[in-house]
Amino acid sequence: MAEKFVSERNLKFLLYEVFDVEGLTRYSYYQDHGREIFDMILDTALRMGKDLLHGTFQEMDRNPPQYVEGRVKVHPLVRTLMRECGEGGWIGANAPYELGGQQLPIMISAASRFIFFAANYSASVYPLLTSGAAHLIESFGTEEMKALYIPKMFSGQWQGTMALTEPQAGSSLSDITTKAVPTQEGYYKIRGQKIFISAGDHDGADNIIHLMLAKIEGAPHGVKGISLFVVPRLRPEPDGTLVPNDVQVAGIYHKLGYRGAPITQLSLGENDDCRGYLVGEPHKGLSYMFQMMNEARIDVGMGAAAIASAAYYAALEYARERPQGRRLRSKDPSLPQVPIIEHPDVKRMLLFQRAVVDGSLALLLQCAKYADLEKVQEGEEKERHGLLLDLLTPVAKTYPSEMGLLSVSQGLQCLGGYGYCDEFPLEQHYRDARIHPIHEGTTGIQGLDLLGRKVVIKGGKAFKLYLEEVRGAVARAEATRGLDAGAGLLEGALQRLEEVTAHLLELAPGDPELFLADATLYLELFGVVTVAWQWLLQALRASEALEADPSGGDRDFYEGKLRTYQYFFSYELPKIEGLCRRLLQSDGLTVNLEDRHFTD
Amino acid sequence: MAEKFVSERNLKFLLYEVFDVEGLTRYSYYQDHGREIFDMILDTALRMGKDLLHGTFQEMDRNPPQYVEGRVKVHPLVRTLMRECGEGGWIGANAPYELGGQQLPIMISAASRFIFFAANYSASVYPLLTSGAAHLIESFGTEEMKALYIPKMFSGQWQGTMALTEPQAGSSLSDITTKAVPTQEGYYKIRGQKIFISAGDHDGADNIIHLMLAKIEGAPHGVKGISLFVVPRLRPEPDGTLVPNDVQVAGIYHKLGYRGAPITQLSLGENDDCRGYLVGEPHKGLSYMFQMMNEARIDVGMGAAAIASAAYYAALEYARERPQGRRLRSKDPSLPQVPIIEHPDVKRMLLFQRAVVDGSLALLLQCAKYADLEKVQEGEEKERHGLLLDLLTPVAKTYPSEMGLLSVSQGLQCLGGYGYCDEFPLEQHYRDARIHPIHEGTTGIQGLDLLGRKVVIKGGKAFKLYLEEVRGAVARAEATRGLDAGAGLLEGALQRLEEVTAHLLELAPGDPELFLADATLYLELFGVVTVAWQWLLQALRASEALEADPSGGDRDFYEGKLRTYQYFFSYELPKIEGLCRRLLQSDGLTVNLEDRHFTD
Repeated sequence: MAEKFVSERNLKFLLYEVFDVEGLTRYSYYQDHGREIFDMILDTALRMGKDLLHGTFQEMDRNPPQYVEGRVKVHPLVRTLMRECGEGGWIGANAPYELGGQQLPIMISAASRFIFFAANYSASVYPLLTSGAAHLIESFGTEEMKALYIPKMFSGQWQGTMALTEPQAGSSLSDITTKAVPTQEGYYKIRGQKIFISAGDHDGADNIIHLMLAKIEGAPHGVKGISLFVVPRLRPEPDGTLVPNDVQVAGIYHKLGYRGAPITQLSLGENDDCRGYLVGEPHKGLSYMFQMMNEARIDVGMGAAAIASAAYYAALEYARERPQGRRLRSKDPSLPQVPIIEHPDVKRMLLFQRAVVDGSLALLLQCAKYADLEKVQEGEEKERHGLLLDLLTPVAKTYPSEMGLLSVSQGLQCLGGYGYCDEFPLEQHYRDARIHPIHEGTTGIQGLDLLGRKVVIKGGKAFKLYLEEVRGAVARAEATRGLDAGAGLLEGALQRLEEVTAHLLELAPGDPELFLADATLYLELFGVVTVAWQWLLQALRASEALEADPSGGDRDFYEGKLRTYQYFFSYELPKIEGLCRRLLQSDGLTVNLEDRHFTD
Repeated sequence: MAEKFVSERNLKFLLYEVFDVEGLTRYSYYQDHGREIFDMILDTALRMGKDLLHGTFQEMDRNPPQYVEGRVKVHPLVRTLMRECGEGGWIGANAPYELGGQQLPIMISAASRFIFFAANYSASVYPLLTSGAAHLIESFGTEEMKALYIPKMFSGQWQGTMALTEPQAGSSLSDITTKAVPTQEGYYKIRGQKIFISAGDHDGADNIIHLMLAKIEGAPHGVKGISLFVVPRLRPEPDGTLVPNDVQVAGIYHKLGYRGAPITQLSLGENDDCRGYLVGEPHKGLSYMFQMMNEARIDVGMGAAAIASAAYYAALEYARERPQGRRLRSKDPSLPQVPIIEHPDVKRMLLFQRAVVDGSLALLLQCAKYADLEKVQEGEEKERHGLLLDLLTPVAKTYPSEMGLLSVSQGLQCLGGYGYCDEFPLEQHYRDARIHPIHEGTTGIQGLDLLGRKVVIKGGKAFKLYLEEVRGAVARAEATRGLDAGAGLLEGALQRLEEVTAHLLELAPGDPELFLADATLYLELFGVVTVAWQWLLQALRASEALEADPSGGDRDFYEGKLRTYQYFFSYELPKIEGLCRRLLQSDGLTVNLEDRHFTD
């Protein structure tokens, strides 16, 4: 199997050179950190990725979780990993010191997650979910809850989950029916079914803590009646003992990929003894849960980019080693064959993959930077970065997920028939990656979120701020030798995006369905423009670095960045034209289409 | 599992209404046939697909071939199917009566294959390969060979294969090293290795007949030294007994999908006793093999379109049954949920799939019609249809293969999380479909074939004929109410295609590598334009049919065709602009890129 799954050089380029993570240490929350600590953390993540996670990548796929007598058995690595992630401080990395956290910048933990995901996506999900669930308790739970759950979760002893989906309520969360009945004792009795719950049960942790949506008896219809509960598998009694909490595991799913993690069906309160503990106020559960969902959406994007990264390096390694054919300039069959990386079409496939991987990662770290700034800033700056993060979350979830599929597929293609065989890791990456456009809100849902919610919030303020951000890069590029053409192309793309946005917004008051009919295409358009911006940022830094006449590997690296930037602007960015033409039509084709038209 | 995997209505629409298969019966070769026989054949194919093939679709995936003591064991269906295909005349369907064939139009057998492939792709490959191999013997073999092999192959007792690939020679066939040493007895002694040989061994047939490329000792370098041999697993002795022919099965591959068919590694002549029988003249093997390869390429396109068809109907069924969410025009959560087919984004995903499936199938039947006409016509008309078929073969292989992947992926997406689980067939379709851009020449190879060979043959005659054909449809559409806009769009697309083609051809003499650097994109462009043409042809017929004011299901069908045509022209056709912009650049980005630029 390919050794390399991420580029340390590229991670450091993005963190230090493009996004200046060190600049965060000027804020008091991050003041104890610095480059040395960041480097140490990244080195540790790389070592864990290599030594602990990557070696079991295939093994966990081939030995998926087993459902045995109402419990789920997982690979022994899970317990080891949870413990190591607990002991190493990874689970509570971003939390404040007083809760046992490390106050680490989100950018650094995001980079670490990228490493873990690329090494072994399924395995990395366990600590990640625990982190998100603990963060939800941290933000909205009572002091008692924090004391009871957070230390055990940060230490990796207890698994956290997010339990939203039900048989009749997937994309439509307003339709959940899991019921919470208040009791005199303060807790609620929970009754219902949850499906597709990742890590919803397993023997790699001592307890499972579900952050669960349910409706308090008599609550209003729809999303306004949803509350958030902590529902442990084993509930901690006052004396410290753990008592079964009537959470039954009804089964697990057999999946295309992502097989190392169990996706479970849960049945709650079959014996009328499932207790849930209300988090925050009643009926505000969905807004709380959105904190975890938004973080999870960024993580899905990260997982997608990471799998594409591992697939890219496997394809690159193969392309450098596999001799096949000759260059078209010298087709003499008596000459030796050349490595396929010498063929322009293979170089194009590799550039595509790199463009997607590095472009996606840049966008995700950009989002992490906004999250860091929102966290530590105040007033207008805080709002600015919060709005930018909100706007870009569906983009950062979807571009890597959708393009990551194509990227992995191109990686597989580089190997020809071998890509289709399980001797090489590409076929697994291809299977694993397919979950990302689905979980944490499908691509269709993300499109509705972007156009129907994010673009219009606060009178379009987030969108205006976005245009400012991108135009900042355009202005710098205009003044940079070699990048003025790219600046012009991106400015042109922004104008098209503004034109399309204005056109669609005009439709909104009259017909919300027509307005949002092509929201998925709008999201695709937004994604290409946004990643073009991220490539321009990288090109700006690479150009600057090349001014200093670096040597050897550094020169190759920066020149490679510029070539990939060129690739993006000449192969990928032009694709927006086809999208814009459709988006400007709004002829209602799909709105007016009827079921009977599918008769054949 | 979904019941429906193909549309009989659509097949008959294309065969009878769009491509007038009945018109072929005016040629003497096909004079015994007519609509009644064609209908009977299609009905039989549908019944076999349903009763024999579709039921074992998942079972064959979950019980893949086993390599046991040097032989390959396959699912018992294989033997049944081979026998039924033999007895039913399917394997020799297109062959002349005197060889035991049915003289059936290629269009009809292509339609039947589409049905079989959609029901169970892996299973259908066995008789298909036998058919192609037998056809090669029929075209270029000696009378003795024909007598010896064809009856056993047509009856389904013996399996045929095409044995080209070797460890060092995949896309680069000029590098094969399997050696053929002439003997006094007339046969050749074969020695070498073959890999990725589909159905290269199995216990569902009594013998395996390899149509194999090898180099006669002392042959010229490269493709000019390749000869074609019949190499049976068991060689028939003059007394009728079958003797092992020193063909060893070294192993089978474990694959992402397409698991019902064994892909084998063969070792030939380990004991110096593997006999090969020369087909045709020495050193002309590759040109002979191209007959089988070209047929196989069309069949790959057909397999891809067929898998996409099965995935589409499974997604359609789900979309009609699954309630989730409400229409955006009435989001009151107290109302019942609606089937997801009512959401515009789901309708868009379904339209995309139908556009790909029906558009691909139309293109493939168009190619089959050219093959039929080439077969039965003479002189200029024969040349015309032969050239059109040659030109369109890489397009008909690739558009369905590449777009079929995306189509299946959209089908899977329609099911959300369930699409990712093996309770539904989508995840298998997703795995099965991924082989198609790889086997029988990767997409990259098809691009080189289209631009580097087919567009330039006979001074561009094939391309000129193609433009004539498409402009014929444009002219008819200009005169048809409601289709003039589409005619204008397609004419515009043709002009862009001509512009790009002229631009690229100018580069050819000076720099073949720059000329062909973006051949894959050129193929993609060509595919979109070509399938737009096929949609215009369907829209022409649907418009005409609607003039007659049909009732009920017929009206729905024709209106649905027009909507899907509109979808293609407003969502898919505009994508060519992004491709054209890149293709007109020819900046040599991928030509000049060096390995070192991938350093990171």
